[in-house]
This record gives sequence, structure tokens and C-alpha cells, in this order.
Amino acid sequence: MHLLKPFSFSKRFPETEVVGSAFAGKQDHLIPLSFGFPAPESLPVDKMTAATEAAMITQGRQALAYSGGTGPKNIINWIKERSKLREIEATEKEIIVTAGSSQAIDLITRTLTDPGDELWVEAPTFFGALKTFRLAETKLFSFPIDENGLRVDLVEQELIERAINNLPLPKLMYVIPNYQNPGGVNLSIERRKRLAELAYEYNFFIIEDDAYVELSFDKSYTPAIYSFGPDRVVYLSTFSKIIAPGLRLGWAIGLKEVIEKMQILKTDGFTSVYVQEVTKNLLEQIDMDEQINNLNTIYLSRKNAMVSAIKQYFGEEVSFHEPHGGFFLWLTFPEHIDTSEFVDAAMIAGVSYIAGKHFFLQNEGYNHMRLCFTFCKEDIIQEAIKRLANTYYEHVNRNQMIEEVN
Amino acid sequence: MHLLKPFSFSKRFPETEVVGSAFAGKQDHLIPLSFGFPAPESLPVDKMTAATEAAMITQGRQALAYSGGTGPKNIINWIKERSKLREIEATEKEIIVTAGSSQAIDLITRTLTDPGDELWVEAPTFFGALKTFRLAETKLFSFPIDENGLRVDLVEQELIERAINNLPLPKLMYVIPNYQNPGGVNLSIERRKRLAELAYEYNFFIIEDDAYVELSFDKSYTPAIYSFGPDRVVYLSTFSKIIAPGLRLGWAIGLKEVIEKMQILKTDGFTSVYVQEVTKNLLEQIDMDEQINNLNTIYLSRKNAMVSAIKQYFGEEVSFHEPHGGFFLWLTFPEHIDTSEFVDAAMIAGVSYIAGKHFFLQNEGYNHMRLCFTFCKEDIIQEAIKRLANTYYEHVNRNQMIEEVN
Repeated sequence: MHLLKPFSFSKRFPETEVVGSAFAGKQDHLIPLSFGFPAPESLPVDKMTAATEAAMITQGRQALAYSGGTGPKNIINWIKERSKLREIEATEKEIIVTAGSSQAIDLITRTLTDPGDELWVEAPTFFGALKTFRLAETKLFSFPIDENGLRVDLVEQELIERAINNLPLPKLMYVIPNYQNPGGVNLSIERRKRLAELAYEYNFFIIEDDAYVELSFDKSYTPAIYSFGPDRVVYLSTFSKIIAPGLRLGWAIGLKEVIEKMQILKTDGFTSVYVQEVTKNLLEQIDMDEQINNLNTIYLSRKNAMVSAIKQYFGEEVSFHEPHGGFFLWLTFPEHIDTSEFVDAAMIAGVSYIAGKHFFLQNEGYNHMRLCFTFCKEDIIQEAIKRLANTYYEHVNRNQMIEEVN
Repeated sequence: MHLLKPFSFSKRFPETEVVGSAFAGKQDHLIPLSFGFPAPESLPVDKMTAATEAAMITQGRQALAYSGGTGPKNIINWIKERSKLREIEATEKEIIVTAGSSQAIDLITRTLTDPGDELWVEAPTFFGALKTFRLAETKLFSFPIDENGLRVDLVEQELIERAINNLPLPKLMYVIPNYQNPGGVNLSIERRKRLAELAYEYNFFIIEDDAYVELSFDKSYTPAIYSFGPDRVVYLSTFSKIIAPGLRLGWAIGLKEVIEKMQILKTDGFTSVYVQEVTKNLLEQIDMDEQINNLNTIYLSRKNAMVSAIKQYFGEEVSFHEPHGGFFLWLTFPEHIDTSEFVDAAMIAGVSYIAGKHFFLQNEGYNHMRLCFTFCKEDIIQEAIKRLANTYYEHVNRNQMIEEVN
């Protein structure tokens, strides 16, 4: 009776490879340099405990309801004030709190595009965003980055060419302006201005994903792209990198009209009032500048440890831009190397990373590798890079031997 | 320079009227019978406080990370065990935890349908689900309910006719089997069986939205539709109605293949580990059956108060099915009445409700009204129904006067 026929799922699911799932601590001997995890020591557990107690005692009933309480409002106010550091002036109705930045990327993409619409990205770029853009069935097109971030000149050239030839223009451009993931570079102020101008001229929106802005070793802040074009930029940031990812609290800032549409698409309803009440209390109790200073002290030391270890074990074999903040080092190997070929060998040797190709649209970036320097302590990083170098040279030697045999 | 051109947003946004936003407590004098809020007195604030402290002390670091900890695993186990009461046998890989049921509805819809696909619903049905289905650009078609729930015979008739005439068959059917929102009725066991059989025969999926199953005044459980067709039913439920909506914790149970795809679409990443750790601790400390008994004692008394008040103030003017659980009373007014015409007058008089038309696809259900009996205390309910009746009769009298003048 219950004969099961094959069912056609939605066409939106792409046939892309899943990025390795080497989650921290899954294997006892594994040192994870793959995913972007904060330093466990940096998580403000004691202060969170106090904040949570305060939230439950003073706002318990509100925290457990669908909406209301003072938490959400106070968080919006905090975001408003903090954004002024990036020269962003926004009203309450121009801000939406989301379940992490990743939800904001999804909401804004589906607010501004339909399947088949052009969406432009940097190459390399965050694989999680690429996944979201593919699920939204957008047509992706990418531009390289250099030491000063996205090559805005090439974006302009492409826009001009498309306009002349009556070809489709982008609806959206996705940019990570500070401590780019994975490149580690920062977009120069001149390019920010020019990009914002292009967005007005060619009528597209920019998603400015600013997850790493606070993680600046030299405390330098460049004004946000948003500050040069508030009507065509949606600015995203998150508490994941400065408090804790477990909260799943991020935000978006943009035109009221855009934020309203994002709220309609936000089918989880309101982001947990409970989490917002707790976070509100934490924000009242914590000295955020001190918290961020502490983070950056830890991360600078770990970045330095990783850079030294790479120089020690890889010498001239790899090159990289030394980032002034953020989470990642982006390595470039010799052209003929495909880093995805020794992901498994590295796992066996007890170290994980993300192969370069995952950060590109297709058939590109094979000779790159992303390493996260924030999660592990200095001595562990040293050991991880040693394991990685061993794995790499074994891989190179094996390939050479195979070539010689053939 | 910054000339702003008009921008075309995604076509997915429908032009439907927004359902009134009469949130509890927004106006001091307003008694909200509109949205489905639990009794504030029922929220387990003290136990939540203890659970939160325990979570932070024993699992603080894990609770603040992206994933891991024992919370998510223990919650899945709790769901597995509790589901056995509905005769649902599921493995871990067949369960996904979501940000409330509403996120699960969104994920499953976009997993199983593409724009233009047929999605069938009950009439009336939950307006939040209708919103999600419209945003997914599905083609909606509806079937009436009676005292025994969805008219499965009419569904079957339509399936046969479509198959004969080579017309599109549904990909999905959305059903609320227990204490239907808004109808308050329960789907009979015979109809559950037949519906599951039809899903196999005509190869569509059923979304079984079981948010209200625990809120049973007579503690009666009918086996879930899922139990009759696990390969073609995705079962949804939530902690919102039995613990607190502020947590935003719900779940879906279905084929491993379906759950995996839902996880891919879940772009908020994992549902807050922090909330899951806290909830895990609560589940360990709380006697869930006692918690649910308490809820049902409160809700039965409030339902009775609302029924008496309606009989007192409306007499024979309205009819309704008296529900044995859930959150809502669904009133039927005389045929020529349009309840949306006195929503504003009722607000001014200090009572809110949801007009019937929002629960239907189009141009239907004008003479209905949904009232929530769980949020307010008995004496407040009495006052609210008095205000509602006054507003209604004033509306009827005014309309009669206008008719007489013309």
C-alpha cells in the first residue's frame, strides 16, 4: 500500500561540495585551524552568568514572552551608538536584530533579488555567503582583491561594459571591507567612496559585511561604505566575534523600507527576547572597549605565533598578507598546488584547514588555504603548523615521485 | 551626485494586508484577544532562573560557542522520547531543532517546493503559515474543515479530478491536526489515516503542525498523521506553548534526507546553543507533566469564562465549536457581517481580535473572528467580551441606520 515514489525536491539546492565539517574538539588529537572560532578563554562566562541572573530576576517574565521587555530596545540603542564609530547614523527603524550575521545575509539577499538576478562578490570570499547566494538562485560573478581590498576599478569597468552592451547589471554586491574573510585585507577609503558612488550610479545595493571591524590590532577604523551611501548599502555586523557566537545575535542597518521587508522574511519571528534581555544586561555590566582590547591582545599574539611558525616551517614556500586584525591568515602556495588534495592527510596528521577553492565561484583558488589563528593557544598553533608543513611536504614529495615514475 | 533611482525589490513580497499588530500591553487600556500568547503567570520564571544559573556554571563555555555542548543532544533526546506519546518513532538524524515552529514551516516549504508549485491548506488556517507560503511563491488552494477537521474527502476528490485531467498535483499539504488554529477542531483518526495514504498515492508531503497537541483539556492524544506515513509527513512542534515563546525553540521530524536539506537552508546556522543549554537544564529540573497539567487547568478555566461571557453578551448572535484544548475560540457571525469592519472600533473600545478573512486565501471568511482565551484572566476576559459585544451591536445598528437612510 505504502509504495514510495521518488520526490523532486526544490531546485534551489546546488550540487556544491560541502565544506569540511572539522568542528572543534570533534577528534581529541585534532587541532582545528579550519573554522572561525573565537578563543574559548575570551568568552565572558562569569559576566554572562551574572547578566543572565540579573535578566531573569528583573525581566524574567518579559524575557520568556514573544516580544516586549526593554532588552530589544536597549540593544538597538547600543547598536546605534556603537555604529557612530564607523560614521554610521541610523534610526531605530533602520536597524534589525538577526540570528547572527548569516541570517542577515540570507534575509537581505532574498529581499533584494529574485532567482536569476546578478549578484557580485569578491574572490576569494566567505563560503557561507556563497552558499546563501546559491540557495537564492542568484547569478554570481566575482572580482579579485589585492592588498587594498576589492578591485573596485574592475567592478567599474564591468559595469560600464555591461551598460554599453545592454547586459544585466547587478542587483547586489557583497563586500567584506575589514579583515576580509579569507583575504585578511582592508578596503581603502578611496575604494569605499567609489564603490558607494557606483551603487548609486548603476542602482545596485551593497551588502557590507563588517563582522570583524572591532578586531583591529592597531585600533584603526575606516568609515563604513555605508557612510558614503546609506541609501544603497546594507551594513551587517554581529555580537558573535566580540561577545560570543553561541548567542546568535547580529544586526543589519539599512533603509527603513529594506529593513521592513527583511522583517517580513524573518519567519523565525523575533530573535529570542530571552537572549536579548541577557545580552542587554551584559552590555550594561561589561566595559566593551576593555573586552575588545583583551580580545585583540590575545589575537595579535596568536597571529604572530602563526606567522613565525609559518616562516619557520614553510620558509619561502608560501606567501601571505599579514593582517592587522580579524581571524584569518590566507596562504598562497605555488601555482601547481591544490590544497584540497591533502585535507584528509592533514586531518589524519591532526590539523584542519579550509582549502582555497571553497572561497571562489568555480575552478579557481586551488593553491590557497585559510587558517584561523584565534581559536588555539600559541604553542598549539606552533604544533599545528609543524604538522601542516609535514603533511604538505609529504604530499609534494609523493606527487614528485609519481611524476618521476610516469 | 547621489541621485536615487527607484529600485525593484524581490517579486516574492505579496501585496497582502498586514494582520493587526495589537501586541499585548502596547496600549494600557487594551485587552488583547488577538495574538496567541500564553498566560504570563504560567511562564516558569523561577525554574528558568535556576536552569540558567546551572547552565552557565556547568556548561558556560560550551553555551557561548557556535556548537557543541550536551544541550542540543539532550534536547533531541527529549523530543525523541516525548514524540513516542504521539506514536512517532524517530532517530536523531530525523530531528532538527529550529527557531520556533514558524522557522520550521519556512524551511520545509522551501525544501519541498519551488515557486509556482501547488501547496494545499485548510480554510481557515494559521495566517503566519499563509504568509510564509506566499513568500515562497507557491500556488495555494484550500479545503474546508468541519467538526472533525480537514475535509479529507474533498481533498481526495480534488486529487482524483486533477489526476484524471492531467492538472498539477500538490507538492505539500499543510494541516494543523490538534486544536486547529483558528478552528479549534481535531482531525479524526480515520481522516489522518486516509490523508497519509493519499500522500503516498499522489506523492505529496504533509506538514503536520502540532503546536497545540499538549494543550489538551481531557488529556486525549490521537496518533500523529506522521505515525501513518513517516515517509511523507514532516511533523512540527514547539516549546513555545509548553515552556515559553521567548526561547524560540521548535522542532521538525521527517525523513533524514529532508531534515538535511532543511539544515542547509537554515542560514542562521545552529539554533542558539546558549538557549539549548538552558532549556536542557530546565527539562531536567521540571516535571513536564505537572507543568502541562497546570497550563491546562488555567486554560480550561479561561476558555469556560470566555464561553460564558459570549453566551451572556452575544446570545444566539454567534455560534462556535467549543474546543477541548489549544488557544482559540473561532466565532461565526451572521453571513452578512464583515468582522474586519469593526477592528478599529474595538481597538478604541479597548479590545483586540483577529478578523476572519486573514485565515483564508481570499474573499472569504468575513463573518468569522478569532479570539485567544489563554492570555487574560477570567474577569478581564469577561470585560473584553462585554466591550466586544457593545462594539459589535453599535456597528450593526449604525449599518442598519445607514441602510434605512438610503
